[in-house]
Amino acid sequence: MSGRAITYLSGGVGGAKLALGLAQVLPADDLSIIANTGDDFDHLGLRICPDIDTLVYTLSGRANTAQGWGRTGETDSFMTAMRELGGPDWFFLGDHDLAMHVERTRRLNAGARLTEVTTHLASALGVGPRILPMTDQAAPTIINTVDGALPFQDYFVRLHAAPVVTGFALHGGVAVAPTVEVMAALDRPDMVIVGPSNPFISIDPILDLTGVCTRLKALKQTGTPIVCVSPIVGGDAIKGPTAKMFRELGETPSVGAIARRYRDIISHLVIDNQDRADASDLAELGLRITVTGTVMQTLDDRIALAEAVLAIGP
Amino acid sequence: MSGRAITYLSGGVGGAKLALGLAQVLPADDLSIIANTGDDFDHLGLRICPDIDTLVYTLSGRANTAQGWGRTGETDSFMTAMRELGGPDWFFLGDHDLAMHVERTRRLNAGARLTEVTTHLASALGVGPRILPMTDQAAPTIINTVDGALPFQDYFVRLHAAPVVTGFALHGGVAVAPTVEVMAALDRPDMVIVGPSNPFISIDPILDLTGVCTRLKALKQTGTPIVCVSPIVGGDAIKGPTAKMFRELGETPSVGAIARRYRDIISHLVIDNQDRADASDLAELGLRITVTGTVMQTLDDRIALAEAVLAIGP
Repeated sequence: MSGRAITYLSGGVGGAKLALGLAQVLPADDLSIIANTGDDFDHLGLRICPDIDTLVYTLSGRANTAQGWGRTGETDSFMTAMRELGGPDWFFLGDHDLAMHVERTRRLNAGARLTEVTTHLASALGVGPRILPMTDQAAPTIINTVDGALPFQDYFVRLHAAPVVTGFALHGGVAVAPTVEVMAALDRPDMVIVGPSNPFISIDPILDLTGVCTRLKALKQTGTPIVCVSPIVGGDAIKGPTAKMFRELGETPSVGAIARRYRDIISHLVIDNQDRADASDLAELGLRITVTGTVMQTLDDRIALAEAVLAIGP
Repeated sequence: MSGRAITYLSGGVGGAKLALGLAQVLPADDLSIIANTGDDFDHLGLRICPDIDTLVYTLSGRANTAQGWGRTGETDSFMTAMRELGGPDWFFLGDHDLAMHVERTRRLNAGARLTEVTTHLASALGVGPRILPMTDQAAPTIINTVDGALPFQDYFVRLHAAPVVTGFALHGGVAVAPTVEVMAALDRPDMVIVGPSNPFISIDPILDLTGVCTRLKALKQTGTPIVCVSPIVGGDAIKGPTAKMFRELGETPSVGAIARRYRDIISHLVIDNQDRADASDLAELGLRITVTGTVMQTLDDRIALAEAVLAIGP
């Protein structure tokens, strides 16, 4: 498969699982991963990029897969001392993980772009594929809830995603441009893959960047396969608030709901065997459907799903 | 001894040892410690105050006394990860210790004065006596050496105090004011104690603050005991580059050299039993001399020295 240009759109945990599968079966140079930065925020003076870090830790073999976030072998001396000092402790920062945020912030403050900093940090940990932040600008996702508008991490971590969602203000409500590296990765890829990530808060922030949707539609028109792996399996999400958000927004979480959201920009939808009964309905939306195992518990699951996706033709 | 107002001038390690002795024998309200901030610097976006932290860790029972700096039970996950990322690793930051710097920086950036931040952090760790930064302004000590002018931590940590010293530019070469809290502690104390700290880089930065020397001379004139505990014992320093600096500046390190430096502002000098032979010469300088054990290896040593100093009358 060498020489194919594969561009993969990803959020955090779910997206990173398939990223690892893709990284196992593709030469590193073939894979560009566009990472959501809508979850990024400043905390304790540090720039924190959760989805980028999840990708870096996952692809470098450092992810704490049991916990679902953070680094393996992590220690918590900093948080213990922080609590002792009466400092903010609602967002856990492991001692190793802190180095990532401190060094990223140091390099950003010295004038480097997030794209450059990410390339350095990922490379230092031995990550092969390019991890491209979707933008170098601030593009915070605001969650509108019945309790008011909430910055993403307030909603997700501090309030445990409990408030009922009424909508989203992506990019802090202003127009934000993707990087030139992101647009280059979308210039003439052989395939675009939309990861099994939360559509509202992981994928939409990427799609809504100036020019990205238009570019994907043009690619679809010219026959480039644009393949989405459904984040909904059997009417629910594997992890995180995706299904809850669908319900709160008045829609039943289903592969059909995923198909309808993405139908203008994707050509193919990959759904799980559990959703096989829905395949014919989805085909009526003009999408080609692949039915396979999409639940990734083991590394073999990740590799098998990556291979199934990459086997999809134009 | 309740109700006495004791003001103690201190640098880091040596000064903190006697501070602990004083804190053991004085009611907390009686003791104000003026801490050198000339070693403070910004590193990795964090404000680091080594002498304040040494005092806080020592007085709260958290100092790593075996190592001579840092916290006891410290872990190094952050530094390990930092090295992995190719970040700056010449200044060791323990995982617990990091919380101090992060929380201090966060509070300073939110607009608090260093004095207020220090009071909060010390109090959170259970420190009773007031620890007063000598100033809330930046007042960096620059070390002039045969290799050029060096910021203090570059000289002390990065270059291991190796370059030959030719002089000092205190407070970055500009006039710096003490805080109102420092001047209040020098307003009408019952006794001022100058700790056994490096005269050039720990005590001079305090003495050279606008108005401090004048105030000490006035206190001395009115009979307030101003007691210095010699940092030179038997012609050498217990720790650190004090003796080396004396020699590089062309002076023999001795209790006499200490007496001559401070004779205008102190009334009493406390010297170690090893230096008993010099006592009569020192008396000719107009100082009252106390000869006792000043080498503090155990907590009992610290307490005994504190009691000997506090027993000094006007």
